[in-house]
Amino acid sequence: MDKLSKCEANYVPLSPLTFLKRAAAVYGNRTSIIYEGTRFNWLQTYDRCRRLASSLRSLNMPKHGVVSVLAPNIPAMYEMHFAVPMAEAVLNTINVRLDAKNVASILRHSEAKVFFVDCQYVQLAREALKLYFVEDTDAAGPRVILIDDIDSPTGIRFGEFEYEQFVQMGDPRFLPEEIHDEWDPITLNYTSGTTSAPKGVVYSHRGAYLSTLSLILGWEMGSAPVYLWSLPMFHCNGWTFTWGVAARGGTNVCLRNTTAYDMYRNISQHRVTHMCCAPIVFNILLQAKPEERKEIASPVQILTGGAPPPASLLEEIELLGFHVTHAYGLTEATGPALVCEWQSSWNQLPKPDQAKLKARQGISILTLADVDVKNLDTMSSVPRDGKTMGEIVLRGSSIMKGYLKNEEATSQSFKNGWFRTGDVGVIHPDGYLEIKDRSKDVIISGGENISSVELENVLFRHPRVLEAAVVAMPHPQWGESPCAFISVKTNSAGKTDDVNEADILSYCRENLSRFMVPKKVVILPELPKTATGKIQKFQLRALAKNFAVSKDHNAQSRAQILAMSRL
Amino acid sequence: MDKLSKCEANYVPLSPLTFLKRAAAVYGNRTSIIYEGTRFNWLQTYDRCRRLASSLRSLNMPKHGVVSVLAPNIPAMYEMHFAVPMAEAVLNTINVRLDAKNVASILRHSEAKVFFVDCQYVQLAREALKLYFVEDTDAAGPRVILIDDIDSPTGIRFGEFEYEQFVQMGDPRFLPEEIHDEWDPITLNYTSGTTSAPKGVVYSHRGAYLSTLSLILGWEMGSAPVYLWSLPMFHCNGWTFTWGVAARGGTNVCLRNTTAYDMYRNISQHRVTHMCCAPIVFNILLQAKPEERKEIASPVQILTGGAPPPASLLEEIELLGFHVTHAYGLTEATGPALVCEWQSSWNQLPKPDQAKLKARQGISILTLADVDVKNLDTMSSVPRDGKTMGEIVLRGSSIMKGYLKNEEATSQSFKNGWFRTGDVGVIHPDGYLEIKDRSKDVIISGGENISSVELENVLFRHPRVLEAAVVAMPHPQWGESPCAFISVKTNSAGKTDDVNEADILSYCRENLSRFMVPKKVVILPELPKTATGKIQKFQLRALAKNFAVSKDHNAQSRAQILAMSRL
Repeated sequence: MDKLSKCEANYVPLSPLTFLKRAAAVYGNRTSIIYEGTRFNWLQTYDRCRRLASSLRSLNMPKHGVVSVLAPNIPAMYEMHFAVPMAEAVLNTINVRLDAKNVASILRHSEAKVFFVDCQYVQLAREALKLYFVEDTDAAGPRVILIDDIDSPTGIRFGEFEYEQFVQMGDPRFLPEEIHDEWDPITLNYTSGTTSAPKGVVYSHRGAYLSTLSLILGWEMGSAPVYLWSLPMFHCNGWTFTWGVAARGGTNVCLRNTTAYDMYRNISQHRVTHMCCAPIVFNILLQAKPEERKEIASPVQILTGGAPPPASLLEEIELLGFHVTHAYGLTEATGPALVCEWQSSWNQLPKPDQAKLKARQGISILTLADVDVKNLDTMSSVPRDGKTMGEIVLRGSSIMKGYLKNEEATSQSFKNGWFRTGDVGVIHPDGYLEIKDRSKDVIISGGENISSVELENVLFRHPRVLEAAVVAMPHPQWGESPCAFISVKTNSAGKTDDVNEADILSYCRENLSRFMVPKKVVILPELPKTATGKIQKFQLRALAKNFAVSKDHNAQSRAQILAMSRL
Repeated sequence: MDKLSKCEANYVPLSPLTFLKRAAAVYGNRTSIIYEGTRFNWLQTYDRCRRLASSLRSLNMPKHGVVSVLAPNIPAMYEMHFAVPMAEAVLNTINVRLDAKNVASILRHSEAKVFFVDCQYVQLAREALKLYFVEDTDAAGPRVILIDDIDSPTGIRFGEFEYEQFVQMGDPRFLPEEIHDEWDPITLNYTSGTTSAPKGVVYSHRGAYLSTLSLILGWEMGSAPVYLWSLPMFHCNGWTFTWGVAARGGTNVCLRNTTAYDMYRNISQHRVTHMCCAPIVFNILLQAKPEERKEIASPVQILTGGAPPPASLLEEIELLGFHVTHAYGLTEATGPALVCEWQSSWNQLPKPDQAKLKARQGISILTLADVDVKNLDTMSSVPRDGKTMGEIVLRGSSIMKGYLKNEEATSQSFKNGWFRTGDVGVIHPDGYLEIKDRSKDVIISGGENISSVELENVLFRHPRVLEAAVVAMPHPQWGESPCAFISVKTNSAGKTDDVNEADILSYCRENLSRFMVPKKVVILPELPKTATGKIQKFQLRALAKNFAVSKDHNAQSRAQILAMSRL
């Protein structure tokens, strides 16, 4: 039976592009995209993607050439997730919150051949292109195509073509060739750079396909979901749900801005069933003014990731009608790699215990072959005791191909047959993983490991704490000691200045082991964040270093902090 | 980015074996198997499978050697779906309804190295082995292992080992090697031979893995299902749910016999959520005596395939608390390839219309790259009009590797990049496929194509018809004409002889176009069936041939028919 060979009938390379073709065939008349007054069905979306692919092909790009995009969650952004790979090109969605310098360096590093720019980001693109050409005046540079707002055109002109014109130019009879090798690249996503310089993560068709199936399964997203695009598509291709909504024949509710008003309005109007977001969006939803809110008629499933949301926040958001599933992932794993699958036996537990269980990162998605927590010195697995910390390592077909033009980083991240996440966690006796920290965020004080996440969780339970981040501060006696940065919720009078550092410190003393109490608490108007909303701990770490050397640092460092929090 | 190469961290061959390993890690304490008084959890199932694999390895089998099994849906049968491929062997589950001659020819054709035999089938196995050695007295023959009933041992002795002893012999520390090539064979399933001699269909690890994910998705089987084994595992590996229940961390409710009493009892006691079966099981459930029934507390999802169940039967079974999803598949496609996905807009329709929609075969599962209905002369797709018939063709990674030692049949079934199902169908405007017939079951009468399935559906709507099959009968004027075979439900007095052929013919005249009315109706106590419960139309066709030549055939052919229906 080893002689039976592969043929076109029994071996078709895995690619998410098949999801769109199938959606057009079997869900043709179902609504694929809603964006304000604009609507498409799956037949139209397939048609538009084929035309766009045909237009891209007419530009004579090299195979696997990069197409960069600077756009919010609008229909064009969704269409490009299929049309660009259909044209045998590689999609690179750029974080719109980056500055011109970063955008320019991505365009150069990826050697982008085409650059799509949404009307809202023309200024940013213009500056980026200027920087791009400053460094190399002879460069051909990418061909630029403007995406005007399809629902309310601005008339802005920029680049060679306008998106709609470019779509309509395409041959309606164009049929993309099938992928010949499922290991071919499909997208290129730059990391946000929480701990180091951005790296270009390359996904394969196979990896994208399998991750998509896994996440649908892990989150139990049924047929015909109504999916709200509250998570940027430039974030790991919307955690694969760009492709997943097509696989499920669902409806994409597109959004230009993720304001509380826009989210509530769309959820209520289109009966949204599913959305993904960073935990920071919980704050937006919870702090909405009464006039911005709409009632949520049927429960909305939320998949969230990034920093573990504090239990108190989970409880509050669920009371509004949202049902939160917690996931853990990273760009290199095509988004979520662990999902905190709910166990029906937990339904009997008191709410705070439920929230605690729910805040854990959970179990591996189905297409990951393996997840483990290892002592990296010995490469042995830590015991399943919920206490012993180790580095979380992953293996499987949803792990990236590697970093573009960065052999060193690629080989460093793949060690002994595992992908090293750089995150520190434990395994509970029930097999569920919990992150304790990014490797760099473990504070080692007098030989004791202190998890900054644990401290942050305690801080979040304080009724007035809005944001919290704890980092290591050098300490003459203990080596390191914890330094906490927080921002504060407004009180009923709209003020924040009634909470001071002493209040927080005394709260910490009441709620923490003595060695874990922060040696310093700093209150800021807002914590410095990356473009994807992650707190930039390296910035805070740099500041904390200062605190230890200068005795009277307050005036100086506060100015520094304020400058940063405007980033 | 084409230089980024595969490594152990980012490319792990797809195999359903990973589902079991993961289930043990993350659902370890959940119940994996219930069989009468016997219970295992996923940790124990993983442990037992590893031991069994270790014992199999100790027999020094060649790589990809075949392990044949003759057993009902008992725990051992489930465990072998993982343990045999863990030992780098190929699992061949044999239909227990076959006769000794067929079993012997499968053992010979597959060159089985090991033969597991459940205590209930010792007599059949003994006869089969006798026939096996008659043909080749020098053959080494397979090593034989008896499976005694784990819950109530019989003490029967047969072969070299007893299953439990063989499991316990295994090394508890044995860790199976990972699959190196996902194209490697995992199981071997012989077709039931509705239209031709049985063929050995080989599945790959990749195909089994992807089909499993597709069916979970297509049927929307959520986490932790309680799955009743009413469909034989020897039927396409239980339509992949052997692996699927592990993927979902569910519970397998094993069954030795699928009597109405056993099914109702297990459904009620263990709160079964899902089951698969042939439509014939609906009759068993519907005709259960009051004392055999139990109330069904929460809805049970049923996935059914094979012949399209008549609308009337669907309506009746749903009233009992079952929710039916209809699928279409064949051994060569790893079981179901199309699933009739429910559309919420259908909820508004009257029940009979709903049943009609539900009886269609539906849309392709996600991992099939393509499904089409083609005019095989021109290889062009038929229009989506619900009328124009063509042959159903499939492509994708869930299609078999090919037929074992049968190059001719393999190359015949793979033509022009498609797998040819031999089934005739139409595509409706909404993209849903409906089977009209097996190619051989289309009756061509006076140039008109008559679908025997259509006629059978009309016959099933007659309140007294229990089974119905229509085949072509030679006709001097029209070339062919339809000949109907039926069996009859008992009336309230327990009789069946109050319905005659004339009643059925007059009912047909009222409900069918004239050219479609059967020229002959034959009432039998039971229709002849294959070992998997499919009606053997080729037998009926042979009979129908006689009707056309002999004028007074009744006495002669009735004897022939009665002989057959005891098969």
